[in-house]
Amino acid sequence: MPAHGPDDLDRLFSPRAVAVVGASTNVDSPGHDYVRALREFGFAGDVYPINPRADEVAAYRAYPTLGDVPGAVDLVICCIPANGVPDVVDACGEAGIPFLHLFTGRLSETGDAEATALEATIEGRAKARGVRILGPNGMGVYHPAGRIAFRPDLPRTAGGVAFLSQSGNNAVEVVIRGAARGLRFGKVANYGNGLDLTPGELLAWLAADPETAVIGAYVEGVADGRGFYEGLRRAALRKPVVIQKAGRSAEGAGAAASHTAALAGEAAIWSGMLRQAGAIEARSQEQLLDLLVGASLLARPQGRRAAVAGGGGGRSVQSADACAGQGLALPPLPADVRERVGGRAPALADWIRNPVDQSILAGSGLSANGMLAMMAGSGAYDLGIANVGEEWFLGRPEAEGRLRHACRRLREAVAESPIPIAVVLGATEMPFDWQRTLIDSVRDELIESGLAVFPTVERAAFALGRLAPR
Amino acid sequence: MPAHGPDDLDRLFSPRAVAVVGASTNVDSPGHDYVRALREFGFAGDVYPINPRADEVAAYRAYPTLGDVPGAVDLVICCIPANGVPDVVDACGEAGIPFLHLFTGRLSETGDAEATALEATIEGRAKARGVRILGPNGMGVYHPAGRIAFRPDLPRTAGGVAFLSQSGNNAVEVVIRGAARGLRFGKVANYGNGLDLTPGELLAWLAADPETAVIGAYVEGVADGRGFYEGLRRAALRKPVVIQKAGRSAEGAGAAASHTAALAGEAAIWSGMLRQAGAIEARSQEQLLDLLVGASLLARPQGRRAAVAGGGGGRSVQSADACAGQGLALPPLPADVRERVGGRAPALADWIRNPVDQSILAGSGLSANGMLAMMAGSGAYDLGIANVGEEWFLGRPEAEGRLRHACRRLREAVAESPIPIAVVLGATEMPFDWQRTLIDSVRDELIESGLAVFPTVERAAFALGRLAPR
Repeated sequence: MPAHGPDDLDRLFSPRAVAVVGASTNVDSPGHDYVRALREFGFAGDVYPINPRADEVAAYRAYPTLGDVPGAVDLVICCIPANGVPDVVDACGEAGIPFLHLFTGRLSETGDAEATALEATIEGRAKARGVRILGPNGMGVYHPAGRIAFRPDLPRTAGGVAFLSQSGNNAVEVVIRGAARGLRFGKVANYGNGLDLTPGELLAWLAADPETAVIGAYVEGVADGRGFYEGLRRAALRKPVVIQKAGRSAEGAGAAASHTAALAGEAAIWSGMLRQAGAIEARSQEQLLDLLVGASLLARPQGRRAAVAGGGGGRSVQSADACAGQGLALPPLPADVRERVGGRAPALADWIRNPVDQSILAGSGLSANGMLAMMAGSGAYDLGIANVGEEWFLGRPEAEGRLRHACRRLREAVAESPIPIAVVLGATEMPFDWQRTLIDSVRDELIESGLAVFPTVERAAFALGRLAPR
Repeated sequence: MPAHGPDDLDRLFSPRAVAVVGASTNVDSPGHDYVRALREFGFAGDVYPINPRADEVAAYRAYPTLGDVPGAVDLVICCIPANGVPDVVDACGEAGIPFLHLFTGRLSETGDAEATALEATIEGRAKARGVRILGPNGMGVYHPAGRIAFRPDLPRTAGGVAFLSQSGNNAVEVVIRGAARGLRFGKVANYGNGLDLTPGELLAWLAADPETAVIGAYVEGVADGRGFYEGLRRAALRKPVVIQKAGRSAEGAGAAASHTAALAGEAAIWSGMLRQAGAIEARSQEQLLDLLVGASLLARPQGRRAAVAGGGGGRSVQSADACAGQGLALPPLPADVRERVGGRAPALADWIRNPVDQSILAGSGLSANGMLAMMAGSGAYDLGIANVGEEWFLGRPEAEGRLRHACRRLREAVAESPIPIAVVLGATEMPFDWQRTLIDSVRDELIESGLAVFPTVERAAFALGRLAPR
């Protein structure tokens, strides 16, 4: 028997031993992937592939049935067709296994009456046996610190961002794209049809999880609205929670029904509920990622006064529009900053403004990074946006050295800044390979240093505008 | 004397000979860049660097003054400080040179009274001398077919997309990013303060330019609203015109004044005027690029009925929301398509829907590309969106071969489709180098084949929604 009860989800994310029912020697199957992922992530406990026709799977000894497994198991991952699942539930119950993750799908989401009845049977059997179910129709758990993953190719680095997803491919997209943006994930769960373990219960548990600093979720619909609200509220009281509610339109709701049998609900009601619970609403995966980057990599702004610097005049105009569009104020340069500029370059003192147009500074001995540092330290601003303006560097001799130098200066300015500063580098499109390699490398360095990097100023302003107090 | 009069802008974009006043041997200066760009682009005519202290610049023989130049000149590029410009205007007039591009800035955009007066002097002198001015405070002309560019590092490939920009760095960004998206530029002009040649006149001329198929413009403000409207209307009657109006907010308008001395005007009035002229409005550079990609790489949709396929269930739900959000309809699969699905996979006939969830198709022998081809040929749809769903492939064995095969099939489906199909690949963020290299390579291949590729389904739906008839 596990030391923890089934309402403590710790053993779901950090099982001491795992059995995979439907483990497969076919390397192109999920029944192989789950076992291989445990091997490749260096899972520390015992792994029991269950397969009556195999001696071993991914170099772990295989067992014919769950009953043949010699040790205690905290989590069973089930990949067999739906008809066999009730027996697996029984076997879990007999062995005292607290958690069963059903990758198995083709249940209620098909809209088929027989499949829907089978799902109800599974639910009843699990309740009677005291087995908690994650899924069905979900990819399960990715928890790099616990050395468990639903795909062998996910990042190994662990961190404080938890993510719940009703959709499996969407969970993979968010993990992969988020990792490239500097998000370090802790506990990730793809709960699919959410038959037993609901997003509400998962949120409530993550609220108290010391490993989790920021929570994101992709939700298509919930069966238990009250439970979801309570879990969400509890979590949002303690940490930033970003929710992407998909299936907002009638068309999206229809797609959600055939995907995870979700009842999508009214978009406006959802928005109101999320606001009331204190969550931050994202309306696309892009917004979700931008908000998670902002919430996990930036200190929360204390107000809405923005200092913006870098890039040319066109970028300054567009930056001003982007900030205004998100309700961020752009106070003028304070007198002491203006005086310091005038001391260095008298002709600029009455011309330069916020946003700082880098091209005006040319030849003055002043840089956008230096201006941003002065503004950040002036007390006149609550948050900053730094446009790298990399296209300018690309056209100069020694482009690489200059761009790297400017980014080093920028990292220093951000490190010393008393206010959070978002960095804009991109968009990512570049036509030439040398440009792509250089920009990717510079971006990776900024992100490795812990900076929040956004591909456009509009997205940086969006994230800061949503995270700053109203 | 040139064969064309100064109101025909052909010699501005395709000069037969160019002089650069302020040509410099300092490789880190615009006065060097302009000369070097002509050399590196393989400009076919004579190039005359004007520099009294140099024998040659970028391997072209230099001349002390414009008057010393031995041949006829169509275009002078001027990089000297503002005080010297009136004399350059006189020299152009005396030599019968029709076009003067003033890279020179620090004029009215500084807000300084003396500089503003100097700009007025330049304007009066040019009018009296019959010299047409592009600029001041602008980077000038990029016209790859004419082998002329305002930066040596811009793409050499030429095409039918014209772009006008009030901002120089913004012009560079649009050209570089657009090239990576498959936009092939023809005539690009950065007109800066727009003292003489205005965006309205440029638009009117591009309307009749046979090389120009699609026009984009980035505008911060115009002095002559009536002239702009007339030029825009003339252009929009003949070809798609996408306008990004920056300086929409009060804050952005302030930034525009110090950037290009632009009077930004009321955002709502601008939107109404653009609509009335038949132009398509973009509210960010990202939207501008997406609309140019759609307008130049996709046939115009004949209606608003969307067929969507590919990616997993979460992507299908989000695709449905994205289409609905842009006012695109998602008609159900027509009976004949449903029958063909039922013939191959009876269990799917009542489950599969539009958008097509690729994960439902697993094991059926049907593919998302095959479904999209059936839908495109059914007559039930006006436009298509194909989600590549690359994250799924990345997790499979032989990921590269499978992804390349699917993209080959997709290219075939798009080539044979009677309706325009936008491709979604991305977002571009990937954590591992092998993933970046693979995705970049696959994207480049799709784009080289002439496909319109968008990083998110939301952006694809936005572009199609704006280009389809209401």
